[in-house]
Amino acid sequence: MTSVESGTRSLGEFTFECGESIGDLEVAYEAYGDFEPQGEGSNAVLVCHALTGSQNVASEGVPGTSGQARAWWNDIVGPGKAIDTTKYYVVCANVPGSCYGSSGPPAENPKTGEPWGTDFPPVTVGDWTRAQRRLLDELGVGRLHAVVGGSAGGMNVLDWAVQYPDDVARIVPVAAAARLDAQCLALDAIARRAITSDDDWQGGDYYGAAKPTDGLALARQVGHVMYLSKTSMGERFGRRAAGRDAVRSFPADRAAGYFPYREVESYLDYQAEKFVDRFDPNSYLYLTRAMDDYDLSEGYEGDADALAAYEGEALLMSFTGDWHFTVAQSESLAEACREASVPVAHHVVGSDHGHDAFLVEPEKVGPPLRDFLADGLAGRAVHDTAEEADGDEETEFAPVHNSLFGG
Amino acid sequence: MTSVESGTRSLGEFTFECGESIGDLEVAYEAYGDFEPQGEGSNAVLVCHALTGSQNVASEGVPGTSGQARAWWNDIVGPGKAIDTTKYYVVCANVPGSCYGSSGPPAENPKTGEPWGTDFPPVTVGDWTRAQRRLLDELGVGRLHAVVGGSAGGMNVLDWAVQYPDDVARIVPVAAAARLDAQCLALDAIARRAITSDDDWQGGDYYGAAKPTDGLALARQVGHVMYLSKTSMGERFGRRAAGRDAVRSFPADRAAGYFPYREVESYLDYQAEKFVDRFDPNSYLYLTRAMDDYDLSEGYEGDADALAAYEGEALLMSFTGDWHFTVAQSESLAEACREASVPVAHHVVGSDHGHDAFLVEPEKVGPPLRDFLADGLAGRAVHDTAEEADGDEETEFAPVHNSLFGG
Repeated sequence: MTSVESGTRSLGEFTFECGESIGDLEVAYEAYGDFEPQGEGSNAVLVCHALTGSQNVASEGVPGTSGQARAWWNDIVGPGKAIDTTKYYVVCANVPGSCYGSSGPPAENPKTGEPWGTDFPPVTVGDWTRAQRRLLDELGVGRLHAVVGGSAGGMNVLDWAVQYPDDVARIVPVAAAARLDAQCLALDAIARRAITSDDDWQGGDYYGAAKPTDGLALARQVGHVMYLSKTSMGERFGRRAAGRDAVRSFPADRAAGYFPYREVESYLDYQAEKFVDRFDPNSYLYLTRAMDDYDLSEGYEGDADALAAYEGEALLMSFTGDWHFTVAQSESLAEACREASVPVAHHVVGSDHGHDAFLVEPEKVGPPLRDFLADGLAGRAVHDTAEEADGDEETEFAPVHNSLFGG
Repeated sequence: MTSVESGTRSLGEFTFECGESIGDLEVAYEAYGDFEPQGEGSNAVLVCHALTGSQNVASEGVPGTSGQARAWWNDIVGPGKAIDTTKYYVVCANVPGSCYGSSGPPAENPKTGEPWGTDFPPVTVGDWTRAQRRLLDELGVGRLHAVVGGSAGGMNVLDWAVQYPDDVARIVPVAAAARLDAQCLALDAIARRAITSDDDWQGGDYYGAAKPTDGLALARQVGHVMYLSKTSMGERFGRRAAGRDAVRSFPADRAAGYFPYREVESYLDYQAEKFVDRFDPNSYLYLTRAMDDYDLSEGYEGDADALAAYEGEALLMSFTGDWHFTVAQSESLAEACREASVPVAHHVVGSDHGHDAFLVEPEKVGPPLRDFLADGLAGRAVHDTAEEADGDEETEFAPVHNSLFGG
């Protein structure tokens, strides 16, 4: 085993991108392995968690939680794993606005002694990045070997290359995009409406009272459908009736009893039940809005312009069955990198697992990630769409089409 | 103009597929044009409405409503239109369980003098079909020239070929499928949970009190995303901020004000607001469940076996950007027809409009429909995937792939 440090740092006054400040930003983090300065840089790798993830990227540390809250990338990060903690000093921080120990709506507002609730300032991906930079300063980490993250965490990675282009040698946005598309913005907006229209939400002031669990459960179910693909849902659940009663009982009418309770409902209900136990409804509002708001090109003339100052290398990974963060969006990002003269590989993984693939297909994610961290773009398992396309109009990375609608 | 008859018929006792009965099934309908017996058949065309549609397929008849409630296929049905009311006797009936005058949850239970609410028996697509058959008997219509319908109405069409194979000469399921897939079942289930978890739903007994509008609005918004495609949402809304305030105000937290209210949210809120005015929440539960439950093969060895007794012709129409009822599902249905020796054409329409295409692209839907009604499969504008595929593995009807993920 390597050493694991788990804790919370008080980073002092923090002004959010919106202009509002709080007196003391607390950031919960975990750090694995030993820090080693190396020339101008170091062996430090920052891992950025996804929307509902936590700092506990690889070991058991947060009691009473599950899903992405606990060891969510355990197959990728650890001794001998793709992000090898015997080789790298791996840091993961819970983003501001979340609910795993960093400042956010459910955390205590020191001025009142009560949870911040919706008095907490609006949070952006840019705030996540700046908070991470401040934490790393505290930990004595200057230039990073790499920043790696999936989904909303991949947006966080991109923001590092924009805000601190000189501080990172290698970036790996996994299943990410320069911005969400209208379809995903719509579904996230619906999810937020489900939370705020739950009577128990009470304008966000539900702490100490009933939690708006129905609303949060609905929000999560909408999200969950986005994480799976049509193909994976068909194969996993089909139209089968569940051989058991509902785990989480939403109210239902009498007529419902005539129809089957299906596997797919049972799965969504089970997942939602786990989720409402581990996540804060206000944090879900705050973090989805940060993700929705993120736009790589904001303040620049375009994506390439935003990346122009970055002098490191980039590995983009995308998944053919992913309709939340699509292969096409990653390819568009790869083109922006090429335009900005950022050395880049866009590595497309064939998978029917939808957006979840970056979490559930470690055997496909690990090798290119490991080799890129070790050898950059020269890494053996690193493939690039540009070399595969080879001037052909019908590029090899297009199986998103088959995987989503096949069968 | 042709004659229009609008009314409600009392069809007497009706036993639903679930085994429960009501003393008198009322069915609201409209009929356009003049009925003409023709040999063994007639000039009658039954049009089956979609999930939230009404009997008012082509003229203004239901006051105070909008969307699919009023003249929802006005570009397709009418004098000189594809379904020409100067030529055909066109009947459309509001399905049992709905809320436009037929028996259903919001209609009066004669025994109590109060709305049925969730005491209304569970309803299936099979019940819709049998109710339509009973209505047509009342109207003196025996054998139909054609049954035509889109979406859930297309399932209703398929059920006609199964339940009354000798009563129909031509069927046209438009943007339909033999059954919904797991992804759509999931989204429909989430939509129902949004309604039943609205505190105003009150177990379905909200008549005379506050309607569960938030829940119904959320349900509709989930549905609406299914009706559009990724491409059409991107083109229509992108990430643009709306230049106006919210039409329908869901509760929101203070932090929301820092972020833009987007075009896509504005659109969904506007559509939801119109929808809650025109539709009944319990009916939404009942009808989505009927749609979800429908399975062409139920009680048979498969789809082909279910269609084996049907001796008429079939025109299937599907739309490349439709991920609710996909091109692949229609093609699978076409294969079942071929296996059952049902003369069939699967006409694929290239469109980015998603599932909505069958309503908003009349110029593409009209010609093949008109020609099929007139001349069957020999109709000039009727195309078939089988002839286009021509033994090639990469069939011509596959642009669903491009349209959903292009750009």
